[in-house]
Amino acid sequence: MMHQENLRVRTPGRALVNVTAEIQRIVERSGVRTGLCTLFVQHTSASLVIQENADPAVLRDLTRWLGELAPESRNWEHDDEGPDDMPAHARSAVTRSSEVIPISASRLALGTWQGIYLWEHRQRPHERHLVVHVTGEK
Amino acid sequence: MMHQENLRVRTPGRALVNVTAEIQRIVERSGVRTGLCTLFVQHTSASLVIQENADPAVLRDLTRWLGELAPESRNWEHDDEGPDDMPAHARSAVTRSSEVIPISASRLALGTWQGIYLWEHRQRPHERHLVVHVTGEK
Amino acid sequence: MMHQENLRVRTPGRALVNVTAEIQRIVERSGVRTGLCTLFVQHTSASLVIQENADPAVLRDLTRWLGELAPESRNWEHDDEGPDDMPAHARSAVTRSSEVIPISASRLALGTWQGIYLWEHRQRPHERHLVVHVTGEK
Repeated sequence: MMHQENLRVRTPGRALVNVTAEIQRIVERSGVRTGLCTLFVQHTSASLVIQENADPAVLRDLTRWLGELAPESRNWEHDDEGPDDMPAHARSAVTRSSEVIPISASRLALGTWQGIYLWEHRQRPHERHLVVHVTGEK
Repeated sequence: MMHQENLRVRTPGRALVNVTAEIQRIVERSGVRTGLCTLFVQHTSASLVIQENADPAVLRDLTRWLGELAPESRNWEHDDEGPDDMPAHARSAVTRSSEVIPISASRLALGTWQGIYLWEHRQRPHERHLVVHVTGEK
Repeated sequence: MMHQENLRVRTPGRALVNVTAEIQRIVERSGVRTGLCTLFVQHTSASLVIQENADPAVLRDLTRWLGELAPESRNWEHDDEGPDDMPAHARSAVTRSSEVIPISASRLALGTWQGIYLWEHRQRPHERHLVVHVTGEK
């Protein structure tokens, strides 16, 4: 069987937002016991990543590091939508638009230290849209 | 139900080639109304990325930026297949080999500004092979 | 039908470990002739990548290059688990946690030069856990 939902996530500006609990609730609503949960972010200046859920310093390091790889200070050709727009596209290009996570015993089969994050790459808060698609057996 | 097709894409050399319309046509041929469309690129010097489909300057910026992250001028050990081969592998490693896009009402559930791109990382034109696999309900 | 297995992989420390043959054996055990094989790594300091399986120099170049992009020598805030931990998270963030590969005629539909690699980003050997989920038709 399958179950598809749209999920809206408010971001505070540039940061990683933990969406694991909301995704797990959608898995539960689907009734799927063994299967797959596919996530898709409908934006090109925000992305998905699965990362450590224990020490918040990991998330700060990731944001700073990716900010240095694709800095606002670079001479980007595309700058009509503000200096933080093109770096956000670049940071999205090297992280994920989609992610697929197995479901086992009605739960996301994540490792102990894994959380699912929506990564906002723009400076200002946004409302971001995800599609969550669950397939499998009850 | 499921539907699998091979798609061949001719690239002009290093560039992002928009394949959204061709993928949407395969989704239509499949007859699937709600489901998933999985894309897979059968190469390690070309990759997939979902990016902004509005301003072509975004695509030029992405190509230049990723070219600087993995430049031909670096002292690569593997250089038997030309100076653009190893940078192409590196650029593929940090973008995507596979991408999964939900289908809703018989259409790819892309955001307004999202396009699906095959990213050619080598200097010369190539014919690239993708596998498109559609699953879901009619 | 579907088939889910856990796969354990021993890594020798920082390196790309070819897991293609083990994944292909799981596809064969599933009995699926046409379908999809989803891989998921349950860690945030090891990741997945599909790369060239011919010249081992490609794998050495990739490891050195990604090591330079996210070096131990950077001033990371998170360093409680050793100087190689935060760089491992960063390297995982720009490669893959999940990968989906079509199955055709009971085989992974990989290109001629493609291999599936588990990328260990930490210095010391680890036992890493993957979930392999196969779906499709017999």
